[in-house]
Amino acid sequence: MQDAFSVIYHVRSTPKEIAGRAEAIALEQSVELPRAAVRDPHIVENILARVESIAPLGDNLFEVAIRLARVTTGDEPAQLLNMLFGNTSLQEDVLLVDVVMPDEMLSAFVGPRFGVTGLRALLGAEARALTCTALKPQGLSSAQLADLCRVFARAGIDLIKDDHGLANQSFSPFAERVARCQAAVEQVNAETGRRCCYVPNLIGSPRQIADQVRICRELGVRVVMVEPMLVGMALMHELAADNSGMAILAHPAFGGALRIAPELLFGKIFRLFGADAVIYPNYGGRFSYSQQTCKTLAENLRRPWGEVKAAFPVPAGGMQVDRVQEMLDVYGRDVILLIGGSLYMAGDALLERSRAFVENVQKGFVA
Amino acid sequence: MQDAFSVIYHVRSTPKEIAGRAEAIALEQSVELPRAAVRDPHIVENILARVESIAPLGDNLFEVAIRLARVTTGDEPAQLLNMLFGNTSLQEDVLLVDVVMPDEMLSAFVGPRFGVTGLRALLGAEARALTCTALKPQGLSSAQLADLCRVFARAGIDLIKDDHGLANQSFSPFAERVARCQAAVEQVNAETGRRCCYVPNLIGSPRQIADQVRICRELGVRVVMVEPMLVGMALMHELAADNSGMAILAHPAFGGALRIAPELLFGKIFRLFGADAVIYPNYGGRFSYSQQTCKTLAENLRRPWGEVKAAFPVPAGGMQVDRVQEMLDVYGRDVILLIGGSLYMAGDALLERSRAFVENVQKGFVA
Repeated sequence: MQDAFSVIYHVRSTPKEIAGRAEAIALEQSVELPRAAVRDPHIVENILARVESIAPLGDNLFEVAIRLARVTTGDEPAQLLNMLFGNTSLQEDVLLVDVVMPDEMLSAFVGPRFGVTGLRALLGAEARALTCTALKPQGLSSAQLADLCRVFARAGIDLIKDDHGLANQSFSPFAERVARCQAAVEQVNAETGRRCCYVPNLIGSPRQIADQVRICRELGVRVVMVEPMLVGMALMHELAADNSGMAILAHPAFGGALRIAPELLFGKIFRLFGADAVIYPNYGGRFSYSQQTCKTLAENLRRPWGEVKAAFPVPAGGMQVDRVQEMLDVYGRDVILLIGGSLYMAGDALLERSRAFVENVQKGFVA
Repeated sequence: MQDAFSVIYHVRSTPKEIAGRAEAIALEQSVELPRAAVRDPHIVENILARVESIAPLGDNLFEVAIRLARVTTGDEPAQLLNMLFGNTSLQEDVLLVDVVMPDEMLSAFVGPRFGVTGLRALLGAEARALTCTALKPQGLSSAQLADLCRVFARAGIDLIKDDHGLANQSFSPFAERVARCQAAVEQVNAETGRRCCYVPNLIGSPRQIADQVRICRELGVRVVMVEPMLVGMALMHELAADNSGMAILAHPAFGGALRIAPELLFGKIFRLFGADAVIYPNYGGRFSYSQQTCKTLAENLRRPWGEVKAAFPVPAGGMQVDRVQEMLDVYGRDVILLIGGSLYMAGDALLERSRAFVENVQKGFVA
């Protein structure tokens, strides 16, 4: 097989059965037929997936590498996912762990348009870690959300994003909310000379999102958020491919397909499909990922990978202002720190605590 | 809270902690803030989710019902999923089990355009179970796939669908493949007087799929397949809302988010968002669902549900011709039986075994 790539699974099996199980996965993820039903020699040679290696991991767990033909993916995001885990995702004994593609295959996908360097330039923050917060809760009016924007922009938070629960609801319709919030942040930027960005949440059907993109561009929005698991990873890839001049912040909502390793789904796949920054549940917060999972995920977003630009990790979920130094120690400076609820807990001191957040990040880097 | 709906989760917890855990889920899935940070009485009254009930299921497992405000969903598919399981999908102790919506909320979504009755009329099969097979393996040329179409159409298989692995690859590009396969089936129909349908697989980004839809309509295709977990459930809903004259067959690829109960994801959500027929892994085949799961899933697709039309269950995955009677016994006649590999195992006797499949279904109903 020429022009192939490797997919890594963890498979629960007895030692006696693993060889057969691995062959079954190779069949399922390529021809989806019993081996005996594949009779065309061209298919056997060029399409049929091969078991590349099987390594015991102990405790009836094995690492299985399967070699797939690139031609089966059509160099298209949805079909790539299909080849990685289409049917096998439905088999309980298999975890999709990793994918290893040659650089010339990577270059068929758009990757982050801005990436770390581009987002830093956009925000005028060349060296330090960036800051991010969320507008919440849903149910507030657009005017109330714009008021929050003013507070956060005055505090100097780089990215002021919609809560992922803000869609096109009656209490803050998309067009109205984005116009007011964008104007609020621009107004404060004009006063402070900063480059804080409001980040609207794009959500809906493809045509609805196309309308939302148009509204954002007309209003001068520079960063948008999407939930690829809700709106489609190929939609995000198309948005990135359009080169709209807006960076993309990806949110993990609905990504609870735990049998896809988060290091892969959020660390590699979201990046490859065009996310400039990827939100994920940080360790020690409301979610269950380990510190090691989070570090690997962040490394996957940033390390050299063919021609694919590095993307920002955005650890989130129950983070607090007094953990900023810890986050910087763990993630370094190429990180976007996202804190939401902990700021709101300050009540009337929202501005002050938001400023403390910003300052902790700045001080953190002096240390 | 007026105009609300209920979401059911299974939560692993100790009896001591379950009340707090349930409250945390209600917060996560609505305001995404600590309770103390929610100060606006309007939000508390109208937006904040409520714990409706907690019932022990034994063994440190609880059924938790959460009441959500409909207004938070914007009556839009992606945002509905977000409200059901956006962030909570990332918490390992929670399984999304069910959703209960009032009929007037259901009517905000399009549901199947054809449904059981419409598909029966389309296929000229008023009373019997329907048949379906798949064109495989990927790697065959469009001409070879069209040859297979002729065989299956001659056998009288109602729905001859693309393998879910057929996309827009170089070996059988979409436009060429669909034109040839559609012509092949139409030609045989003209000879036999039957109404077999070729079912192309739509996959790609939103604009690529829009192109594919246009091609299908121009060629007179009447049924298409989509993988909602790969291309986006809101895209499928939009396709259904467009009322294109083509029925939708939904495929579960990439749907391995096991912490969404398959009875819900495939049985209710896919139906609500417009699938006229839903493929799922049958018990006793290559996948791991129990017979009870499959029966409930099928029932969910078909039972009365507000104004939402019934959809066809399409049990699949390692089914065999000699299990047809069993499938009819289990599912009744409102079912599409999908058999692929077992037909191909017949080798040169493909036509005969395909005919046997069709005949077993017909005989099955005489019995």
